Amino acid sequence: MNTVELIIKKRTGKAFAKEEINFLINSYTKSKIPDYQFSALLMAILLKGMSKAETSYLTKAMLHSGKVIDLSSIKGPKIDKHSTGGVGDKTSLILAPIVAAAGVNVPMISGRGLGHTGGTLDKLESIPGFRTDLSLKEYKSVLKECGAVLIGQTKDIAPADKLIYSLRDVTGTVESIPLITGSIMSKKLAEGIDGLVLDVKTGSGAFMRETKDAIELAVSLMNTAKAFNIKVIAFITDMNQPLGNYIGNWLEVYESIKVLRGKQGGDLLDLSLNLSGAMIYLGGKAGSIKKGIEVAKEQINNGKAFEKFVQMVKLQGGNTKFILHPEKYPKSKFIRKIKTEKSGYVKSIDNYQIGMAALELGAGRKTKTDIIDPKAGIIFKIKLGGKIKKGQVIAELHSQSLDKISTAKELILSAIKYSKQKTTKPKLIKKIIK
Amino acid sequence: MNTVELIIKKRTGKAFAKEEINFLINSYTKSKIPDYQFSALLMAILLKGMSKAETSYLTKAMLHSGKVIDLSSIKGPKIDKHSTGGVGDKTSLILAPIVAAAGVNVPMISGRGLGHTGGTLDKLESIPGFRTDLSLKEYKSVLKECGAVLIGQTKDIAPADKLIYSLRDVTGTVESIPLITGSIMSKKLAEGIDGLVLDVKTGSGAFMRETKDAIELAVSLMNTAKAFNIKVIAFITDMNQPLGNYIGNWLEVYESIKVLRGKQGGDLLDLSLNLSGAMIYLGGKAGSIKKGIEVAKEQINNGKAFEKFVQMVKLQGGNTKFILHPEKYPKSKFIRKIKTEKSGYVKSIDNYQIGMAALELGAGRKTKTDIIDPKAGIIFKIKLGGKIKKGQVIAELHSQSLDKISTAKELILSAIKYSKQKTTKPKLIKKIIK
Repeated sequence: MNTVELIIKKRTGKAFAKEEINFLINSYTKSKIPDYQFSALLMAILLKGMSKAETSYLTKAMLHSGKVIDLSSIKGPKIDKHSTGGVGDKTSLILAPIVAAAGVNVPMISGRGLGHTGGTLDKLESIPGFRTDLSLKEYKSVLKECGAVLIGQTKDIAPADKLIYSLRDVTGTVESIPLITGSIMSKKLAEGIDGLVLDVKTGSGAFMRETKDAIELAVSLMNTAKAFNIKVIAFITDMNQPLGNYIGNWLEVYESIKVLRGKQGGDLLDLSLNLSGAMIYLGGKAGSIKKGIEVAKEQINNGKAFEKFVQMVKLQGGNTKFILHPEKYPKSKFIRKIKTEKSGYVKSIDNYQIGMAALELGAGRKTKTDIIDPKAGIIFKIKLGGKIKKGQVIAELHSQSLDKISTAKELILSAIKYSKQKTTKPKLIKKIIK
Repeated sequence: MNTVELIIKKRTGKAFAKEEINFLINSYTKSKIPDYQFSALLMAILLKGMSKAETSYLTKAMLHSGKVIDLSSIKGPKIDKHSTGGVGDKTSLILAPIVAAAGVNVPMISGRGLGHTGGTLDKLESIPGFRTDLSLKEYKSVLKECGAVLIGQTKDIAPADKLIYSLRDVTGTVESIPLITGSIMSKKLAEGIDGLVLDVKTGSGAFMRETKDAIELAVSLMNTAKAFNIKVIAFITDMNQPLGNYIGNWLEVYESIKVLRGKQGGDLLDLSLNLSGAMIYLGGKAGSIKKGIEVAKEQINNGKAFEKFVQMVKLQGGNTKFILHPEKYPKSKFIRKIKTEKSGYVKSIDNYQIGMAALELGAGRKTKTDIIDPKAGIIFKIKLGGKIKKGQVIAELHSQSLDKISTAKELILSAIKYSKQKTTKPKLIKKIIK
């Protein structure tokens, strides 16, 4: 096959055959197609699209560029969740122990922070000793013993995705539904799961700002999951404000502990219960999502979810002292409260900017080599629709540097718009697609 | 400026500002933008287009990546011609001496064969000793003395084009009107000309198979020429069959000599006179294209055009013995006649395939390092609309290898379709755009 002819084929809007996609992915992975040809191809795919069938072939080719984990030795259902990422989204830390406590295995392979969004691995690594780089043998052993495991992508899993994602990142070809689908699903399918719950976020803090784009992505992910006989449910959820109140790695672990201990309600609990409910339902431990939510609530109330979390942290090498006594965790050198100079109802939050403020404080990476400060972050104290008085504390900033606090403060203050008229709070769960 | 943001800007259909195009072209030319980013940009440009203004900025940036030749020391008008290329198109060799004989300077910088089409430089180099690699000083000196000069692109002229074209060639991004416009016009404008005649070919042997695409390209080239205050006339001409009867480097020089000596009529003479007439008109040596054609005819009839050709060959180092006595030129080892096994009227010719047959015989390069056989080629003896009898000789093949002749024969025989009904011959000049 001729690479230039295949680029022209896609450029002129034609669909690839399975063999053509296999050739392209295999050749690129083996460095037989140079980056400059593959990036032109990626742009043609972004602008001309891919059919449902092509997207499945793409996913399959990417999946088989590496290992598919065999979890047949582990009894019971294996259900995972994938979120497209957002600000303050720590649901993985909460739902994995809840769902495991309900008897459903959660073999989760997760990612790092990307741009303005946090990453599950970075959050977990704020727990001293916690290892996200388990070998596949260790991964299976933790899953077998505890029912939940949370690790990072290994070299063996979908290596094509790593290569292609790096190229997309620097060639303006990230925002393509079929390419995003291939990237997400090749990694999730490599886990050897039976079912998947998707949390596709939309709003000012999400990669998909428009709900219609989020739905389009959800449908593409679901189509691909179904092509591989994976049970799937998708939630379209709001990301126009931080989820929960804590943003930053340890701060988010801290908030997760509060939720797991039944000490915090609100949107974070609500979404965690919904996603857990859907996972428990897909795992066959409840007859519906609604009944699954009841089972999930029970795991919090009876203390088993928190116990599972402690067990998982221990098995993955983490120091449980801070889980059992989170108040003992080291504090940032500077903690500063921000007060608003305006009053009124919270009308809109530029949630991307809130994420960037957390990154500025040290919670994320500006470049690949930046070191994350696990303590840094924001306690964000307001929600859309809330009534605010002039002088009220709207956020608390944690950092090792006053300069960083000053930069973050500006970002946060300018991100929030107020209105004299009452404003409505957004619906957290916009749509559930089965 | 950020390259990825600029790629996304074009990808989402927005227009570049002048400074952005300058940044992109300058940075790529200086290797500050890697190939993999530039190829994604090229694909975005191909699929999303460029406005008239953007195309001019692009041309200007490419032009100023190198030297602009100063011809102010040479008296009189300087008019060039550009053809988009075809099979058997040797009009440059004919019109340059005609137009120079009429008192208009022709400072032509030309190209090599590309795929199925021949190149003026390769044709001229079939004349022993002929140098197409003159220095700019030599180029001006030949032009001053003779009024016509034909050389190849130097490193100093539009280096951005050479780099970008190489990348387009291997990334499926050749067929873009704005990119083709930038490539052609940056080189032509570097010549320091006052006017340009365009010969945009359409049909089975042209890069633009459809007339509407040829017109679109012609209009884009003309818009850009006008933006630089260059007088311009475009011809849309037929390339559904070879132009003239000879295809192959020396064979085309041979046919050009016949035309210049007034010994051959037909489509080749017709088109050469039209293009010459337009150049003479643009150079102010005739009041209209029609009157320019009369002046051109005169240069053939009074022998001055042929004299100019001999002078130019001599000044560029060529052995004029073969120009004055073309029958003395070495012959191919094998010369074979092809007879048709069918009879009827010639209905269609896959002219691309005829070009490929000439290439197979040794007249062109399959890879960049292939050496051209100057003697190789085809004398093609039929024209569309002509009546053919079974057993009639339709072509004569010249090559050093019988294997090559056999391959070429198959290509030629399968390229021609006959009809029992009378067929019409295509109009040579489809449109003249002023």
